[in-house]
Amino acid sequence: MNETEKTVAYPSAAYFLQKANLLAPTLQRVDVHPVSLIELYQGTEDWAFREQAPIDQLFTRTFQKGDRVLIDFGTHCVGYVHLSISPIGSPPDAPAYLKVKFGEHLCEMAEDSSDYHGSLSASWIQEEFVHVDVMPTELDLKRRYAFRFMEIVIKDTSPKYQIKIDHLFCETVSSADMNAVPVISCSDPLLNEIDRVSVKTMHDCMQEVFEDGPKRDRRLWIGDLRLQALTNYETFQNNDLVKRCLYLFAGLCQEDGRVSACVFTKPSPITDDTVLFDYSLFFVSCLHDYYMHTKDLACVKELWETACRQIAIAKTYLREDGVLRDRSDWWCFVDWNDVLNKQASAQAIFIYAVKQACTLADVLKDEEKKREFEELSDTLIDGAKRVLWDASKGFFVSGAERQISWASQVWFVLAQVFSKEENEALLKRLIQKNPPVKMITPYLYHHFIEALWISGMQTEAIAYLKSYWGGMIADGADCFYELYDPADKLASPYGSRVINSYCHAWSGTPAYFIRKYLC
Amino acid sequence: MNETEKTVAYPSAAYFLQKANLLAPTLQRVDVHPVSLIELYQGTEDWAFREQAPIDQLFTRTFQKGDRVLIDFGTHCVGYVHLSISPIGSPPDAPAYLKVKFGEHLCEMAEDSSDYHGSLSASWIQEEFVHVDVMPTELDLKRRYAFRFMEIVIKDTSPKYQIKIDHLFCETVSSADMNAVPVISCSDPLLNEIDRVSVKTMHDCMQEVFEDGPKRDRRLWIGDLRLQALTNYETFQNNDLVKRCLYLFAGLCQEDGRVSACVFTKPSPITDDTVLFDYSLFFVSCLHDYYMHTKDLACVKELWETACRQIAIAKTYLREDGVLRDRSDWWCFVDWNDVLNKQASAQAIFIYAVKQACTLADVLKDEEKKREFEELSDTLIDGAKRVLWDASKGFFVSGAERQISWASQVWFVLAQVFSKEENEALLKRLIQKNPPVKMITPYLYHHFIEALWISGMQTEAIAYLKSYWGGMIADGADCFYELYDPADKLASPYGSRVINSYCHAWSGTPAYFIRKYLC
Repeated sequence: MNETEKTVAYPSAAYFLQKANLLAPTLQRVDVHPVSLIELYQGTEDWAFREQAPIDQLFTRTFQKGDRVLIDFGTHCVGYVHLSISPIGSPPDAPAYLKVKFGEHLCEMAEDSSDYHGSLSASWIQEEFVHVDVMPTELDLKRRYAFRFMEIVIKDTSPKYQIKIDHLFCETVSSADMNAVPVISCSDPLLNEIDRVSVKTMHDCMQEVFEDGPKRDRRLWIGDLRLQALTNYETFQNNDLVKRCLYLFAGLCQEDGRVSACVFTKPSPITDDTVLFDYSLFFVSCLHDYYMHTKDLACVKELWETACRQIAIAKTYLREDGVLRDRSDWWCFVDWNDVLNKQASAQAIFIYAVKQACTLADVLKDEEKKREFEELSDTLIDGAKRVLWDASKGFFVSGAERQISWASQVWFVLAQVFSKEENEALLKRLIQKNPPVKMITPYLYHHFIEALWISGMQTEAIAYLKSYWGGMIADGADCFYELYDPADKLASPYGSRVINSYCHAWSGTPAYFIRKYLC
Repeated sequence: MNETEKTVAYPSAAYFLQKANLLAPTLQRVDVHPVSLIELYQGTEDWAFREQAPIDQLFTRTFQKGDRVLIDFGTHCVGYVHLSISPIGSPPDAPAYLKVKFGEHLCEMAEDSSDYHGSLSASWIQEEFVHVDVMPTELDLKRRYAFRFMEIVIKDTSPKYQIKIDHLFCETVSSADMNAVPVISCSDPLLNEIDRVSVKTMHDCMQEVFEDGPKRDRRLWIGDLRLQALTNYETFQNNDLVKRCLYLFAGLCQEDGRVSACVFTKPSPITDDTVLFDYSLFFVSCLHDYYMHTKDLACVKELWETACRQIAIAKTYLREDGVLRDRSDWWCFVDWNDVLNKQASAQAIFIYAVKQACTLADVLKDEEKKREFEELSDTLIDGAKRVLWDASKGFFVSGAERQISWASQVWFVLAQVFSKEENEALLKRLIQKNPPVKMITPYLYHHFIEALWISGMQTEAIAYLKSYWGGMIADGADCFYELYDPADKLASPYGSRVINSYCHAWSGTPAYFIRKYLC
């Protein structure tokens, strides 16, 4: 045995990225045609629409300067829009100038883009101004849009000609095949409907990677990935897409070794500079879940060092009392809630991830890591019980102000530091006392439902599932929304709801619950 | 000799178009780079600009939301703009959204497009809104622009990144080679400068056909073609481009056989539905001039029937007294002057064209046509002298109101119905009496200058040339304008001068005069 043979070469970032590249999926393309011409009106709660004319009028009408048509594609589409334009009248003596706008939600169609003053970039508004110099033409819009509704405004032609639209369709793309997912048939039709919209949401987010939302941000966040992967195992089973994303994150770590919160793949794979405590640890969770559903031991072996490194780095955040230092900056995600103190949730997530790491260490027969992680788990649980558990209140508290939030309780249930019965009692107490630091995102709602389910509270889980995700369906959702507050449906953390994503992966997990626990 | 041999097969429209297609030129491509960053200010008469920063600052600055930069390319460009955009800061977490705007004249840059309410289509405004989804990117704008000035406005990036422009240039196109035209050296530097701008104007209009203006209308009008061809013979001598255009017009006649006023070549050759009395007759003139400069008898033979047909059709407009019927509709162009009565000008143009047809009949040894056209010429001249010449006033009159206009006198001089001396006297009387129905377009100014020159009034011709075209140069013209009224420089017949063409073929003829008559 020589020196070379003794060296265990840990795979390089370039190797991981090459592996991810080889796993790139082929996108499936399905043409979707519009179904009707519609008009908007102000309903009692929000914008609503009604059919104005059958869709064939789109192809028989002639359009002139100032004309505007609003088109319903009948379903959420992610893809490339093609339309053909012919001149009617004299030969076109000037270019045609069109505005096209796409929206997932009616509010995007109803509100004027120039009135947008939200905190996110206006560049997300799916609106284009297009000059057509030569007609007839096949207008193949180059950008990918996520939408159900499309508006066409004829800004100008010339007095000498009008235009006609000969065809219009969306070439939808996804790396998932809708036909690969069996339709379920629960006794409750609302659950079937929730499942259908959930599967559709996941499908539309499954592109060259698992995207968080196909309208915005169109990229791979590991927080979303974890939930998408869990739902994928119950539905599409595109497990290679999960694997590809794991390799991308492994190949695109920060210089200090932390897994990034999100990565970009175009023009070439590159990491974002956002790192979140919980998101880095979810690399361990994603790898754990991937192994549980695939038994792909070779992959776990290759990515094990990256996983262990996340735990080692997270350990450096620990105080001597076995509890994570609290921080006031954006260090840990948990939920979009500005008042939420993250210390307790982070501690619980750390425990949750370390337990999964123990399982993987066991699978890999890595006794040293197993022992290390078991000890760490004990330290974290002990610290949590001593410092963060307020026995008098019956809740976990977080931060110097000892804040009691929904998030902290939910995550400690998921971390399973107490028995199932104790967790059930904790959740019931949570529901009954209803502390004011509430859940904001469907993402945290997912974790709440999961907590209910693993604590034997199936009835409550189903009730919340039906009321929260069923509420979106009642409001006309084609896919599940990034943000949904039943008490304030027009809310947006971005200052304008036209920028909200209305097809968002982290909201699309009901199919996971329904198919794993019910059907 | 059998039946087949006796039949003279007149070439079909398809044959003409095939011939035109074979003559399609290869465009020459020359990259033009911007020269400075500028800022606008309101000068005493019109918008003016000054350098704000050297051009290298365009490539060293970083740009964020709301930034705006105004770029001077130093010369008029017709072509395709390429720029590359790189992100600075975090990886782009949202698309970049840019506005780019191009203008030939400062007024286009100074005035907000949303304020445009002119009569021509707003689609001519060279302004685009561009989303850039992936960066760094090579942004190859797909449309051809005609401009000297370019504005870039950063509508949005995101708070996490800014952008940098790595390079920017215009890939200019023309079927003419600037190096093929010798620089002239008159003793008068202003004439040299007028010649230079004239040649540049012609160059920029010479594309796959002779375009009227590369910004607007970007197409082949026979009125413009006639003047472009005349200038071309003295400069670029791209005679095949003239020939191609002649075949296009011959192949795209109206159903009744009239040559159209203009034709389109994309997506395939098609005729416009505009027909003008004078423009149809100019097919004869263009063919005559082409033969005179090329001696291409084969071409004249093929197009002779089309030329003769224009005269035959024009004859149907004649009254029994040998004078054209007057009409109140837009039947004959002559000049953009709403009050101008066209009857006399049309009569003169008919005479002008028929005389050229006589020359061609002579060349072709077509005795029958020669006799016919000589007789027609006599009839037209006789009618004109009897009915349209007002000896008491010493002017040609037009229409029932017996209108005296500059246009009528200019065209009767060009038709040479009187002797050179009589014409000189007529022109001197015209200048002295200065009737109120004036010349509006550089197109009619061209004919006035030509009339002066052929009547021995070189001094006046040069003076007008220097004052009119020199006036544009003094106002900063890079190319000669479609419209120029020294008394009202902000005028536009379209309700807004931003839509005027500032590089227009029919204004670019000074090189023809200077090189034919002076150098």
